[in-house]
Amino acid sequence: MKTLIVYAHPEPDSLNGALKDLAVSTLEAAGHEVRVSDLYAMEWKAVVDAADYGPSASSPLKVARDSGRAFDSGTLTPDVLAEQEKLRWADTVILQFPLWWYSMPAILKGWVDRVLTRQFGYGVGEYSATKYGERFGEGALAGRRALLSVTVGGPESHYAARGINGPIDDLLFPIQHGILYHPGIEVLPPFVLYRADRLTSEEYRDAAKAWQERLLTLETTEPIAYRRQNFGEYEIPALTLKEGLESTGRSGFGLHVRS
Amino acid sequence: MKTLIVYAHPEPDSLNGALKDLAVSTLEAAGHEVRVSDLYAMEWKAVVDAADYGPSASSPLKVARDSGRAFDSGTLTPDVLAEQEKLRWADTVILQFPLWWYSMPAILKGWVDRVLTRQFGYGVGEYSATKYGERFGEGALAGRRALLSVTVGGPESHYAARGINGPIDDLLFPIQHGILYHPGIEVLPPFVLYRADRLTSEEYRDAAKAWQERLLTLETTEPIAYRRQNFGEYEIPALTLKEGLESTGRSGFGLHVRS
Repeated sequence: MKTLIVYAHPEPDSLNGALKDLAVSTLEAAGHEVRVSDLYAMEWKAVVDAADYGPSASSPLKVARDSGRAFDSGTLTPDVLAEQEKLRWADTVILQFPLWWYSMPAILKGWVDRVLTRQFGYGVGEYSATKYGERFGEGALAGRRALLSVTVGGPESHYAARGINGPIDDLLFPIQHGILYHPGIEVLPPFVLYRADRLTSEEYRDAAKAWQERLLTLETTEPIAYRRQNFGEYEIPALTLKEGLESTGRSGFGLHVRS
Repeated sequence: MKTLIVYAHPEPDSLNGALKDLAVSTLEAAGHEVRVSDLYAMEWKAVVDAADYGPSASSPLKVARDSGRAFDSGTLTPDVLAEQEKLRWADTVILQFPLWWYSMPAILKGWVDRVLTRQFGYGVGEYSATKYGERFGEGALAGRRALLSVTVGGPESHYAARGINGPIDDLLFPIQHGILYHPGIEVLPPFVLYRADRLTSEEYRDAAKAWQERLLTLETTEPIAYRRQNFGEYEIPALTLKEGLESTGRSGFGLHVRS
């Protein structure tokens, strides 16, 4: 495998840092190639602005259109070009981050906002009566697999089916389906560590072992069975799921996973 | 009303900029006080790091704990203290932003990550057999109401109950329930503008009128009926919703809204 780890935590001596280090050493020891984007160490610019698009930035700025023009004309900034090159190189992408306020830290959201430009992350493909671009199951990043490795402060019950925060799969859906599957990346079930601030050293040893097992079985892990957009299950162009395809009781985000 | 508008778009001459300006003029003309945090104009620092906590930052950095210590000892940075003061002042909070990759722009996520420190945004109150902190219906920011005003590139059908992106209410749940309701803010139904990049001038006039109507009826708008955490509907400390409280067919995030 060629694995890109995008890592977002300000403290190297943190649980997230340890899981990132363990991923690097475990994958390399198994003969895989690994590259790491350590966003804090890189002082990653988190904020989209006109400077991102160089001479392709129009006035007034149009973020979607201008990002696509900058992509097409090669005028994206070197930091963004470097990340796009890493994504092209990789067949496997791991996002390692703490869940802050039920989503990714701002620095990682800024990586998504800036790197996944139009023509690279979205807006590709033909729009016709049978196809609405290449998205959700196809796209510029098809052929890759991704995995979220997430640390969570609270206990698992708070993120269970009836948990007050909502099910973890639903909280991660905008990332897994919306950010990763949208440009064509298959998404493996996430690795989630709960009560991250309170792990005993024994619990950490168990977690590290479970993480290593996940890493060493990535190639044979089945991705989440999200439905593909352009293959008969959705009305085009409304992109609503056709009636009768879901299992009883499925609704909301769950509709978009095959039974 | 005392309204704080937190506005996150890099281009003043944008739809988001226009909606923000319209909110200011409409509310002020109606006699309300308005303050604006224009995150791009403020060059808001989006990224949490040790510098945020001054002498309260420990080594290794512990984000949650250190942010609470910095809050308690008054050693948060002036930019964060100013935003906390605005939130204390306000009775109404509007977040104005474009939906980028199914969530808020990084600069706004960075406002959330940095401003809602422990002891201010979470971690307050007693933990006992009947109470699990003051959260979801109580908390440091109780007594306030909030409203998301969101522009979305795609058409409404993509965000409908069966839409491929998932229902807009579910996409906004981690923000509305997880970020706003968590520290005690009541949340009004969002104002969402679809096909934001393609509005004709006539469509914009209609949207502007609808936005003004929402603004002028904020005081009488019923908030979303999220369930309160500590008032008998959840098991403590598992924080799972007790059985039998929901309407038939409700699941996932929808469980946490009263019928």
